[in-house]
Amino acid sequence: MVGVDFGTLSGRAVVVRVSDGAELGSAVHEYAHRVIEHSLPDSGRKLGPDWALQSPQDWLDVLRIAVPAAVTAAGVAPEEVIGIGTDFTACTVLPTTAAGTPLCFETPDEPHAWPKLWKHHAAQPHAGRINELAARRGESWLPRYGGKISSEWEFAKALQVLEEAPEVYARAERWIEAADWIIWQLTGVESRNICTAGYKGIFQDGGYPSEEFLAELNPGFAGFAGKLATGEVGEKVNGATLAPLGGLAGRLTARAAQWTGLPEGAAVAVGNVDAHVTAAAADAVRPGQMVAIMGTSTCHIMPSDQLAEVPGMCGVVRDGIVPGLWGYEAGQSAVGDIFAWFVDNLGAGLSHERLTELAEKQAVGEHGLVALDWFGGNRSVLVDHNLSGVIVGQTLATRPEDVYRALIESTAYGARMIVETFEKSGVPVQEFVVAGGLLKNRFLMQVYADVLRRPLSVIGSDQGPALGSAIHAAVAAGAYPGIEEAAAAMGKRAEAAYVPDEARADAYDRLYAEYRKLHDFFGDGKMLHTLRAIRNEARS
Amino acid sequence: MVGVDFGTLSGRAVVVRVSDGAELGSAVHEYAHRVIEHSLPDSGRKLGPDWALQSPQDWLDVLRIAVPAAVTAAGVAPEEVIGIGTDFTACTVLPTTAAGTPLCFETPDEPHAWPKLWKHHAAQPHAGRINELAARRGESWLPRYGGKISSEWEFAKALQVLEEAPEVYARAERWIEAADWIIWQLTGVESRNICTAGYKGIFQDGGYPSEEFLAELNPGFAGFAGKLATGEVGEKVNGATLAPLGGLAGRLTARAAQWTGLPEGAAVAVGNVDAHVTAAAADAVRPGQMVAIMGTSTCHIMPSDQLAEVPGMCGVVRDGIVPGLWGYEAGQSAVGDIFAWFVDNLGAGLSHERLTELAEKQAVGEHGLVALDWFGGNRSVLVDHNLSGVIVGQTLATRPEDVYRALIESTAYGARMIVETFEKSGVPVQEFVVAGGLLKNRFLMQVYADVLRRPLSVIGSDQGPALGSAIHAAVAAGAYPGIEEAAAAMGKRAEAAYVPDEARADAYDRLYAEYRKLHDFFGDGKMLHTLRAIRNEARS
Repeated sequence: MVGVDFGTLSGRAVVVRVSDGAELGSAVHEYAHRVIEHSLPDSGRKLGPDWALQSPQDWLDVLRIAVPAAVTAAGVAPEEVIGIGTDFTACTVLPTTAAGTPLCFETPDEPHAWPKLWKHHAAQPHAGRINELAARRGESWLPRYGGKISSEWEFAKALQVLEEAPEVYARAERWIEAADWIIWQLTGVESRNICTAGYKGIFQDGGYPSEEFLAELNPGFAGFAGKLATGEVGEKVNGATLAPLGGLAGRLTARAAQWTGLPEGAAVAVGNVDAHVTAAAADAVRPGQMVAIMGTSTCHIMPSDQLAEVPGMCGVVRDGIVPGLWGYEAGQSAVGDIFAWFVDNLGAGLSHERLTELAEKQAVGEHGLVALDWFGGNRSVLVDHNLSGVIVGQTLATRPEDVYRALIESTAYGARMIVETFEKSGVPVQEFVVAGGLLKNRFLMQVYADVLRRPLSVIGSDQGPALGSAIHAAVAAGAYPGIEEAAAAMGKRAEAAYVPDEARADAYDRLYAEYRKLHDFFGDGKMLHTLRAIRNEARS
Repeated sequence: MVGVDFGTLSGRAVVVRVSDGAELGSAVHEYAHRVIEHSLPDSGRKLGPDWALQSPQDWLDVLRIAVPAAVTAAGVAPEEVIGIGTDFTACTVLPTTAAGTPLCFETPDEPHAWPKLWKHHAAQPHAGRINELAARRGESWLPRYGGKISSEWEFAKALQVLEEAPEVYARAERWIEAADWIIWQLTGVESRNICTAGYKGIFQDGGYPSEEFLAELNPGFAGFAGKLATGEVGEKVNGATLAPLGGLAGRLTARAAQWTGLPEGAAVAVGNVDAHVTAAAADAVRPGQMVAIMGTSTCHIMPSDQLAEVPGMCGVVRDGIVPGLWGYEAGQSAVGDIFAWFVDNLGAGLSHERLTELAEKQAVGEHGLVALDWFGGNRSVLVDHNLSGVIVGQTLATRPEDVYRALIESTAYGARMIVETFEKSGVPVQEFVVAGGLLKNRFLMQVYADVLRRPLSVIGSDQGPALGSAIHAAVAAGAYPGIEEAAAAMGKRAEAAYVPDEARADAYDRLYAEYRKLHDFFGDGKMLHTLRAIRNEARS
């Protein structure tokens, strides 16, 4: 089984044994174009601020280069591979022809013809209008997204194309997530996975935002859903099928078999998102298993049998993680990014390792500090990207390791705030499972266990998304009856790898109470928005 | 004329021309014992935490070494020197015999026999009791000190001696400021200057705290004032005279003439305090001229014809700066110390100069930050040493120079808060005059002008205290009728050296409004005291 994880800077292929999830070999291909942020390739045409594009050619190169290399590294015969699964960053989305050809292959000097990467943030004004109108009209889908649609998502980005490059919008017969486009390339069949349709495409209760709503945004936007998949789940309408996770999207075409070196006709799983597929890799797809993928930012993924409107969540989508359950997503805008910022700017030349070593020696609260982890804004639970960080309690004796520790703790308080918000909203969190790059900092993990007052489970793979994709592929290939069974056999999770210490947890309770007070005081944004407004005026 | 400034680590002598204040020569002597903080000299006896002592021998060495060296450097004949003036740190205080012999000369292995330097903070519990009792009894002198007596002052330090070393207290026939002790050594006559008697000795409205009050603190403390000067101003009681500033304390004795190389019989001015005497050096001794001596911390000194209870001031003393006016003192606990802390701990290896250069390029508010300058607590206007610093508005794009600039600005906001508090209390501030080491940072000065929305005058000497002492000596010697006239002739002040820029001042008004909100929110100490309490528990 092959799992392929398409990340922001590279794609990784992993060959996984179906019986037990053993990772037999892997290979990584770095994208030649990386992230296109300042100017277009070849033409050199300048991009505006906050733009971020990618090249579909880079993704195809992952199939052509990383997949065969992983098979070679695994030492298995290509014929033994019975299926392939993929995951992608999201919302990374592109306009194509009805045949699936990316418009940027036709008009490479037109910026809006290129795929917009998840972190393309130039559609903020469009997102703002969507939110304002949806709130005004009381659209029923708005609370499913914690009350706010992100500028990163499909509708905001498409509206930007419509208004800034109407001819591109008109030529775009399809508007498709890269997660689905890559499956189209592998199978020759267009499908739309339920995960991105729900979380990024505002597909709720069987439909998209109404034509009336879209027309009010812009009359030309009314028929936008026609560029997506419009039928019921499994039903083919206008050539595209809305497809369930773990489903069989199609079979490997001869062309794709040639690219990848895998057997023609191998099973190809329905597309998926890196964070969401990690739940399977951690064998955490049952109700109440919250998987925190902790890296530069943190994404929280949790299946549940309860539907509720959780304040500040990124989204709740039926079947969005596994079929049959509600899938919740929440997030912290910056986590590892905060520690990196500190080390790069204020860390006195000390490494993460050294700062951790020094911080670890302290008793809880010994630094006298508490911080708000809003250096990258706050996604959950306040959904306000214009918030900023606060550090309280510094004296002339405060050392770099004190601040570093306080920043680590602040992100743990942020995580606790999210967990508590879910539980208060009637969505129980039974288990907190950690995946992602920050796992390697054992001190940080212990802080989270102490602050959350609960045992932490940890994923047993450092290639979580690719492993998760392979698990989905095993289901698509029929090796297991469903994702839960496949995850149980192939996923890897160590339960209670970190256990809270009572005394430390008690001490953190007191500090968390102060964090909450700061949260209340600064959370209304009055002061932080004012500072940002002054900043923006001063810069302009 | 010779002025001698006794500082924390060294003493500086300056020879000054009487006619115009020209500084003809100077010399510095570093104290051999510097600050005695951990163990006593010779015996090596350990001191407790927060202790800070000095050696009287070091002070005498300044007279023996620095004074003749300054005269030599000036190229003047010693006979031409007609007077000597001195200033000292305060409250630096010592127990002596009735003859003025420091008790530490007799029992050098007894810690309490040594002079307690101003920054000896081990009498905090005693100060706490004094404040509590004074508030409970409604003592009329308490509001004259902004509602709080400092642990640094005479009564707190003496009470510590009484309770921790009663035999030393009993032997101490006199309890005297170093500022006055050095005059005693020069003249053979005991005098007590009105400045330290008022600011550090709680001498108000012609008397000290009552025997009844002192007895309630500790029955053995009832007669404490008998170790001070108890008469009216100019009246000799029990061998000691309470003496006006600029007055003639006495004449140089033969012994002191031998030490200093100056003529026997030269005029010796009444003792004074470094900050207060700087007002004369800056020719700023008229009502409403606020002199800010800006260094590691800032001390604000201002004569006024108005008596008012200004919240959080350090003290108001009749004749405390110049005879005939009320003398106000206020302070910011840490200023230069904050910048040094940042550079040493978080400044990314950049120097003050480089950080200033980078910070200076920014428009007001461009960094998006506002900070509370309480890294060393807050003296004026909150009188709370258990407050701590706060930095608000950081993002992943915040750079070291951004924080550095925000810290500079925070101290300027703190200064504005003090100025506004004086004015609101009915004590007008007519002119803001800067002296001290931070003068050399021109960018910082401009920030203060912009934030305060008023022109800054600056002192024209970098030896302000010694020059001020020489000015006082000139008055004592009869060369001028009073301090105001002497300061006008010999003091140096450039008016409106920095002028506020309207646009920047407007922008700072907006940021200052946010600073005030932080001041209100954190100023009650609820959160910051909690963090400190948690810290102290964690450390113990």
